[in-house]
Amino acid sequence: MTARPVPDTDPALLEEILAGLAASAAPLADTDRLARARAVRAVADALDAASADLVEVAARETWLPLPRLTGEVGRTSGQLRMFAGGLEEGSYLDVIIDPADPGATPVPRPDLRRVQVPLGPVLVFAGSNFPFAFSVAGGDTASALAAGCPVVVKAHPGHPETSVRTAEVVRRAWEGAGMPAGSFALVLGEQVGVDALRDPRITAAGFTGSLHGGTALYRIAAQRDAPIPFYAEMGSLNPTFVTAGAIAARGDEIAAGFVTSFTLGVGQFCTKPGLLFLPRGHGLDAALERAVAAAAPGRMLHERIRTGHDAVRAQLAALPGMRVAAAVDSDPDAGGPAGATLLATDLATLLAEQDTVLPECFGPTSVVVEYDGMDDVLVAARAFGASLTATVHAEPDEIELVRPLVRELRDQAGRIVWNGWPTGVAVSWAMHHGGPWPATSSPLHTSVGMTAIRRFLRPVTYQDVPAALLDDVLQDANPAGIPRRLGGRLSTGDLSRS
Amino acid sequence: MTARPVPDTDPALLEEILAGLAASAAPLADTDRLARARAVRAVADALDAASADLVEVAARETWLPLPRLTGEVGRTSGQLRMFAGGLEEGSYLDVIIDPADPGATPVPRPDLRRVQVPLGPVLVFAGSNFPFAFSVAGGDTASALAAGCPVVVKAHPGHPETSVRTAEVVRRAWEGAGMPAGSFALVLGEQVGVDALRDPRITAAGFTGSLHGGTALYRIAAQRDAPIPFYAEMGSLNPTFVTAGAIAARGDEIAAGFVTSFTLGVGQFCTKPGLLFLPRGHGLDAALERAVAAAAPGRMLHERIRTGHDAVRAQLAALPGMRVAAAVDSDPDAGGPAGATLLATDLATLLAEQDTVLPECFGPTSVVVEYDGMDDVLVAARAFGASLTATVHAEPDEIELVRPLVRELRDQAGRIVWNGWPTGVAVSWAMHHGGPWPATSSPLHTSVGMTAIRRFLRPVTYQDVPAALLDDVLQDANPAGIPRRLGGRLSTGDLSRS
Repeated sequence: MTARPVPDTDPALLEEILAGLAASAAPLADTDRLARARAVRAVADALDAASADLVEVAARETWLPLPRLTGEVGRTSGQLRMFAGGLEEGSYLDVIIDPADPGATPVPRPDLRRVQVPLGPVLVFAGSNFPFAFSVAGGDTASALAAGCPVVVKAHPGHPETSVRTAEVVRRAWEGAGMPAGSFALVLGEQVGVDALRDPRITAAGFTGSLHGGTALYRIAAQRDAPIPFYAEMGSLNPTFVTAGAIAARGDEIAAGFVTSFTLGVGQFCTKPGLLFLPRGHGLDAALERAVAAAAPGRMLHERIRTGHDAVRAQLAALPGMRVAAAVDSDPDAGGPAGATLLATDLATLLAEQDTVLPECFGPTSVVVEYDGMDDVLVAARAFGASLTATVHAEPDEIELVRPLVRELRDQAGRIVWNGWPTGVAVSWAMHHGGPWPATSSPLHTSVGMTAIRRFLRPVTYQDVPAALLDDVLQDANPAGIPRRLGGRLSTGDLSRS
Repeated sequence: MTARPVPDTDPALLEEILAGLAASAAPLADTDRLARARAVRAVADALDAASADLVEVAARETWLPLPRLTGEVGRTSGQLRMFAGGLEEGSYLDVIIDPADPGATPVPRPDLRRVQVPLGPVLVFAGSNFPFAFSVAGGDTASALAAGCPVVVKAHPGHPETSVRTAEVVRRAWEGAGMPAGSFALVLGEQVGVDALRDPRITAAGFTGSLHGGTALYRIAAQRDAPIPFYAEMGSLNPTFVTAGAIAARGDEIAAGFVTSFTLGVGQFCTKPGLLFLPRGHGLDAALERAVAAAAPGRMLHERIRTGHDAVRAQLAALPGMRVAAAVDSDPDAGGPAGATLLATDLATLLAEQDTVLPECFGPTSVVVEYDGMDDVLVAARAFGASLTATVHAEPDEIELVRPLVRELRDQAGRIVWNGWPTGVAVSWAMHHGGPWPATSSPLHTSVGMTAIRRFLRPVTYQDVPAALLDDVLQDANPAGIPRRLGGRLSTGDLSRS
C-alpha cells in the first residue's frame, strides 16, 4: 500500500466539525435552490480543474491506471452537474397542494401544502473502489449537498491523501460559491466514523462498501437513542443468465463480453457479474478460456483487497464440484498484477454450498454455473437474484421462454439488463442502483441517478399557513414554474388562475 | 376490559398464513392496478355495509361512543377509496424513462425505464386508539394492499373481536373481487407478532403505537439477518405556540379550542396537543378553567390505558414547579369516565425536567407552559418540536414575529398548523402524518394520505429490455395515459411521437 499515513481526526476536531455541521444546517437549508445549483456546478468545475493533480495522487494510492481515474473525475463532475440540473428543474421538491375544501365530509378540509425539506447533517462513508465517483465528492455527497444537507465524509483508508486533497477542492469551491462555512468537512479514522455515526447531530448516513461493514454500521445507526436512516450499498453477485438461443447466435461474443465485464477495473465494481448461468453443454469452454487468457492482469486497489480476493477465490475453488475453468497467473506479490480466474460448477453444487458461495469475490474472479432447463434458472434467480443487477441474454424468438425469468428477477434485482453487461452505471433520472438486502440496506432508494436526492429529504405539510410565511414554490402563483401536484393532478400551472 | 378473550394464533396457523402470504405475493403483484383499485373499493363498500355490526362490537371492546366509531368506519372506507383513486391515476408508479442516447459521453447511454413494484408481504401492527382507521383495515393495510403487497395484520389486544370481524369482512371482499387467496390475513398475540416480524418472508412492517413498543420492534427488524423497513408512528407531544397578539384578539376562543382538541377522543389521539406555550401573564387561567370544567369526562379505550394515563399524570403533577391549573374529577374505577386535567408550569421548569416531562401523557391531560419572549419560544421549539405536528396561533400583524418560529418548526415537525388545532388529520395527497424520531421511525414517510403507498414500493429499472417484456405503463405509447417522466420532464404523452 503506497498511501502515505494520514493521522486520524482527533476528538476535538471531530467535535468542531460536528458543531459546524449542526450550525450550518439551517443556513444551508435556507439557501435558494438555484444558488445551491450554482455552488454544485462550482464544485464540478473545481474538480475538473484539479483533475490532473488529484488523479496523480489517486494513481499512487490506489494503483488504478491514469486514464480510468481521469475518466472517473469526469463522471464525478458530470454527476454533480446532473444534481444541479435537478435543482433547477425543481420537481425534486415534490410539491403537493390540496386547496381547502369547506364542503368536505365528515369535516371541512384545510388548505394543505407539502414540500420536501433537507433532513439535516449527513455522514458519508466513502467507498474504496471508485476513489472519486463513490468517495469524497461522489454520489452520496453530491445528492446530500444538492438536497441542502451539510455533509461530513469519513474518508476511505485506501486513499486518504486523495480524500484530503479532494475535500479541500470541494470545500473551497462550495464555500467560495457562498455556501455556509462548516457545511462540508472530511474526517479520517474508523473509530472517528463510528463516533460520528452515534452523534445525535447526524441525521442520516450513506455508505458504499462491503456487506460486513455496511451491516455493522447499519445496526449501530439502529441502536442510537434516535435511530437514523442508513443507506448502505453493499455486496452484489449480479447473476447473468444466458439461453441456448443466445449461445447459438453469438456465443463467442457473449464469452468475450462476460470476461471483459467481470475483469473491468480488475473486477472491483459492485456491478461485476459474479455468476454466469449457461445451459449444460453450452460449448463455450474454449471461447471463455481464450477470453480469460486475453484479459490483461491488473493491480488491485491495494494489498488488503488483493489478499481478500485471493482468499475468497481459494475458498470457492476448493468447493466440492468446483473446477478452475480458466485462469491467468497472478503476481505472487500482492502489489503486483492479479490475473483473471474463471471457476465452473453446476447449479446443484452451488445450491448445496450456498452459504460458502454467496460471499462476493471482490476482484477478477467469476463463476460459470451450468443449468439443466428453465426451471433450474428460476430456482437460481430466486436463490441468487437479490442483487444490484441481473442480466439476461436471449434471442428475439425466446421472449416467452424468458418471460418468467424476467418476472422473477423483477422481484429480486434493482436493475435488469438485456443483452448487455451490468458494469457501467448510467447517471440519469431513470437509473436505479439499489435492490433488496444484501444489495442495499434500503430497497426503496438508489445511490446513483437523480432520485438519489430523495434519501436526504423529508416532507413537511403546512396547514392553513399564510402565504407570507411560505416559500415561493408553495405560492399559488408558482412563480418558478416548477412541476407540482394540485388537487391530485400534476401541473406547472398557477393555482390562483385554475 | 370487556374484550372477550380471543386465543393467540398458534404456530402452525402462523406458518400457514406466512406461506400463503409468500405464495400470493407474485400473483398479487401481477394483478392489474385497475383490478386492484376495484378490489380496494369492494373492501370499502363491504366495511360500510358491515358498519353497524362492527361498530357494536367495537363499542363494547373499546368503550368508544357509537357516533365516533361510526364516523371512523366512514373515514376508513374513505381512505380505501382514496388509494383506489390513486391506483387509477397511476402516478404512484413513478415511471421514469430515459431513452437511449448513443452519443452520450463518456459512453453511450442505454434505454432505461424505471417503475415502482410491490415490496412483498407486509406485516401491520394495528393501533389501539382508532379501532378502524389505524387498525385491521386502516391506512397501513390500505396502502400496502393498494401497492400490491400481501398483508398480515397483528391485531391490537385492545379490540380482538373487532379485529377478527373486520378482517373477515376485508378478506371476503378482497378475495371476492378476485385478489389471490391468502394475500390478506390476521394474527393475534404479542409473541406471534414478533415471530412474524422475524420471519424472512416478511419484507416490511407498519406500526402505530407507543414509543416504547415501536422502538423495540424497530430494533428487532434491524437485527434480522436481512433487515427490513419498519415504519412506526409513535408518540408525539404536538406543541402549540400562542402569541400575545392572538390572546388579545381571541384568547377565550383559543382556550376553548385547545381544551376541545386535547380532550377530543378522551385525549387518545396521536395529534393531541400536549403542550400549550403561552406568554407569561397571559390571563387565560379563568377561560381555561371554564373550558376544562365544561369538558365532559369520557371512558378511555380500556383499563390499561386509563391506568397508564393516571400514572403519567401523577408523575407530571408531582414535578417541582408544576401545578394543577384545572381538573375535572375522574371516576376512581378505571372503567369509568376520566376527567380532563390541565397542568401548568414555566419553560425553565420544563427544560430542567425534560426527561420526565417528555413522555406523552396519552389521555385527557395537557400542560400549559409560560414563556418570557420569542427567544424562549425558539428554545422550546427546538426542545419539544420533534412531533407529528406543531401549531402556531398568531395575528396577521405578527408574521415577522413568528417567522423564526415557523422556520424552526419546519426542521422539527411533520405538519405545521396555523390558527387551528392538530387533531383531525385530513386524508389527502398533501397530508404528511410523520416527522423525525420520536414521532416516527422513518422521517421520509407518512402513514396518512396518498403518499403512504410509497412505503411499500421499490424501484426497478429495465435496461434495453424489449417492449414485449415490459408492462403497459413502460411502453412508448403510454396507452394508459399516466403521468411519467420522459428524458427528465414530466409528461402524459406518447414517447413514440415525441
